[in-house]
Amino acid sequence: MTTKLSLTLAAICGVGLGAIGMNTLDAQGRDRTVVRIAELEIEPSQLDAYKVAVKEEMDDAIRLEPGVLAIYSVAEKDRPNSLRFFEIYASDEAYLLHLESPHFKKYVATTQKMIRSRKLIETAPVQLSAKPR
Amino acid sequence: MTTKLSLTLAAICGVGLGAIGMNTLDAQGRDRTVVRIAELEIEPSQLDAYKVAVKEEMDDAIRLEPGVLAIYSVAEKDRPNSLRFFEIYASDEAYLLHLESPHFKKYVATTQKMIRSRKLIETAPVQLSAKPR
Repeated sequence: MTTKLSLTLAAICGVGLGAIGMNTLDAQGRDRTVVRIAELEIEPSQLDAYKVAVKEEMDDAIRLEPGVLAIYSVAEKDRPNSLRFFEIYASDEAYLLHLESPHFKKYVATTQKMIRSRKLIETAPVQLSAKPR
Repeated sequence: MTTKLSLTLAAICGVGLGAIGMNTLDAQGRDRTVVRIAELEIEPSQLDAYKVAVKEEMDDAIRLEPGVLAIYSVAEKDRPNSLRFFEIYASDEAYLLHLESPHFKKYVATTQKMIRSRKLIETAPVQLSAKPR
């Protein structure tokens, strides 16, 4: 039981399992890292309010959730209300926990009327290279 | 002269200028971080060879270039030869240095016939949140 719990926690947190760059490997050396891309169109009149809400949510997720490794948000330079998100989670479990977190639920409730359209793209990581942490 | 050189190096490397998450700030607190997105369609028959070449180039860039903070490469799950890149540089200078690096030039020469199409997207960072390094 203890071993199973430890393994599960390690899987969620990406801790103690070895890492190449940002990738999370399981005990068998398989890459468990989950990367999700989102493309959002924000109501122009709501852009500032949206950014305040999403920045708070991103800060909370990184600070409070061990399995949320990175969330990057950028605007397209020539279409400032087209935002793109690149999100890195340690595992599927970590992503599912994130969806259930109070800060994510608050973000969804606050911003749902600010978002005109939303495209979510599932991915298979090829390589995630970042400066060592 | 020495001060100017140090400031330039610091600007390229994103060192000693303070950081919020992954963002690089200059001495005046302005965010200098550059994020570029690329969407590439690879010739299906060349996909494996392309991945070998790009992984080597990514490794070299992260290892050798202080101003290349992260390069992430993922495939769309249902279109495995559609690759998306999310690249974080400490500054414009760091990005320009990257384009001149031997490993980048080698990558371009090796892969140019493997790439069917290429879309480059310039961005304005909204927020770059990652686990502390």
